[in-house]
Amino acid sequence: MSGEVYDVVIVGAGPAGLTAAIYCVRSGLSIQVIGKVIGGQVAESSLVENYPGLKAISGFELAKRIAEHAESLGVDVLMDEVVGVEQVSDLFIVRTSASGDFKCRALILAIGAEPSRLGIKGEEEFRGRGVSYCATCDGPLFKGKDVAVVGGGNSALDAALYLSSLARTVYLIHRRGEFRAAKALVDKVVEKNNIVRLLKRVPIEIGGSRYVEWIKVKSVETGKVEELRVNGVFIEIGRSVRSDFLRGFVDLDNKGQIIVDSLCRTSRRGVFAAGDATNIPYKQAIIAAGEGAKAALSAYEYLKELKV
Amino acid sequence: MSGEVYDVVIVGAGPAGLTAAIYCVRSGLSIQVIGKVIGGQVAESSLVENYPGLKAISGFELAKRIAEHAESLGVDVLMDEVVGVEQVSDLFIVRTSASGDFKCRALILAIGAEPSRLGIKGEEEFRGRGVSYCATCDGPLFKGKDVAVVGGGNSALDAALYLSSLARTVYLIHRRGEFRAAKALVDKVVEKNNIVRLLKRVPIEIGGSRYVEWIKVKSVETGKVEELRVNGVFIEIGRSVRSDFLRGFVDLDNKGQIIVDSLCRTSRRGVFAAGDATNIPYKQAIIAAGEGAKAALSAYEYLKELKV
Repeated sequence: MSGEVYDVVIVGAGPAGLTAAIYCVRSGLSIQVIGKVIGGQVAESSLVENYPGLKAISGFELAKRIAEHAESLGVDVLMDEVVGVEQVSDLFIVRTSASGDFKCRALILAIGAEPSRLGIKGEEEFRGRGVSYCATCDGPLFKGKDVAVVGGGNSALDAALYLSSLARTVYLIHRRGEFRAAKALVDKVVEKNNIVRLLKRVPIEIGGSRYVEWIKVKSVETGKVEELRVNGVFIEIGRSVRSDFLRGFVDLDNKGQIIVDSLCRTSRRGVFAAGDATNIPYKQAIIAAGEGAKAALSAYEYLKELKV
Repeated sequence: MSGEVYDVVIVGAGPAGLTAAIYCVRSGLSIQVIGKVIGGQVAESSLVENYPGLKAISGFELAKRIAEHAESLGVDVLMDEVVGVEQVSDLFIVRTSASGDFKCRALILAIGAEPSRLGIKGEEEFRGRGVSYCATCDGPLFKGKDVAVVGGGNSALDAALYLSSLARTVYLIHRRGEFRAAKALVDKVVEKNNIVRLLKRVPIEIGGSRYVEWIKVKSVETGKVEELRVNGVFIEIGRSVRSDFLRGFVDLDNKGQIIVDSLCRTSRRGVFAAGDATNIPYKQAIIAAGEGAKAALSAYEYLKELKV
C-alpha cells in the first residue's frame, strides 16, 4: 500500500465520477479516480439531446468531452476495479484488483449501473443503432416510428407509456402471461391504442442493415416465430449496481443501490455517492453530473470540518 | 385567466428552469415557462470552468446555449414576474404581474437567488471583470494573484479560505470588530498566513482600467482610506431568494430558501423546486441543471399518478 493519503478517492469515471473529480481538483483536494471504463453508461447512448447546453451529441462524444475536461485539470483515471473498501479510524482503504490499496480521508462512490442484457443475436451489434436501454434518453429519436419494448416490470411499462406518446406503434414483448408492473401502469398500457401487448413471447433476434429494422419474437407456447418491423428496440429487463463489495459498509436499498440524501451523503460519514449507482431513480447524464458536483462539495465540507 | 390548463408551469428561466423545461417537453408535457430574465445568475459569471463537457465558457455564453437548447425544443419563455401562487383543488393558479393567471397541474419553482450588492462605485462597472459574487465559480481565475473578500459571515470566510489556497494574498474586509462566522472557520482563517484580516473597514470604491486593479477601504474608526492592489473582489455579504410570495404555500428555511428532498419535491404535493432557490447549499450551474431535470421527472411521475 502506497503511503500517500489522498483527500478523496473517487470510484467510477462516468459523468458522476468525472464531475466529482473536476470539482475536487478545483477545490484544491488531492484525488485518485479509479474506474473500469471512462464515460459510464451515457457513452452507449446513440444520441443525447437532453444535456443542457449541448443540443445534440452522441453519448460517446459527451463522455469524451467530460473526460477531456477532467484531464485538462490534471485528473488521471486509474483503470482498475475496486474490490473492497473499509474504514480504519478516520481513513478509508480502497482495495483494487490490480493496483493495490489506496488510502483517503473521504470517499466518493460513483460506480454506475449496468442494464441487464437479453443476450440475443443482434443485441450487441445494433446497440446505439436502434437497440437502447434507456427510453427517456433515446425515445425522442423514434417519433412517428415503430418500436419494441422488451420487459414486463415497471420500467418496461413506463418505457412503453413514454414511447406511446412519441412512436407510432409500441410492441410490448413479455415472456410471461401477465405483467409484473403496478396495476395502475398495466391499466394505462391497456388503454393506449398504440401499445400492442405481445405476452408469452420471447425475443430471439434483432436485425437490419445499418440500423435496426426488425425483431423476431417466438411464442413460448406454440414456438411460432413472428418478425416485427421496428426501428427501435428498448430493452427494459432490469438494471444492476455491482455493489456487493459495499454491503455492510453503506446502506443499500433492495436493488443494491446506494442510499443518499439530498447532499449525496451515504449512511457512513465521509462516504458520498452520486449517479446511477444511487437510489435517485432518474438515470440521466445531467443528473449524474449535478450529483457528482454535490458529492464533491459535500466531501470538501466534510474534510474542512475534519481538519478543524 | 386563459382557460388552458398546462401540465406544468415553470417559474424561472436559469439553468434549473430551462433544464426542467427541456425534460418536460421531451416527456410530452405541455408547459409554460415564466421568468424575469433568461439565464439566471450563471450568466453573470465571467468564466465557467466547471460545467462538465464545456471546458471554459463565459457564463453568458453558457446561459445562451442552454436557452437556445430549450428554444430548439419549442420552449418559449414568457418574460414576466410571478407575484402569487395558490392551489384550487387539484390545480395551481400562477399569478403574473402583467400577463394574467396561468393554470397548471404541477408547478416547478426555479426562481433563483440574488447576491446582495455593496452598492459602491465600480461594483456594477467591474462585475464579471474582477468583481464576483461566487468564489467557487471564479476563484481559480485568480491563481497567484491578490484578491479581496468582503463580508464577515460563513460564506465570506468560506470564500477567503477557498481563495487562500489559490490566490497569493486574500484581504478579508469586514465592517465589524469581529466575524459573525462559525468559530472553527474564524480559527482557520487566523491560521492562514496569506489571509490579511481588515476589520472595522468598509469598502468604498472599486477601480481599474479594463479589469479590477484596486479597492479602496475606509476605517470606520478613524475614517482613514487605504487602497489595496487586487485583481479580484469577492462580495460575500449574503444572498436572497425572493420567496415572499411562497410563504405559507411551501416550506421555506430560515433564509427563505425552498426546502426540497432528494427528488426535488417541496412540502406541497405537485410542487417541485430546483436550483439556487432551494436549500441545497451549493449554488452551481451544473447542480441547478441536474436538479431541474430531477424536478421535471418528479413532476412527470406525479402527473402520471394523478391521471391514473
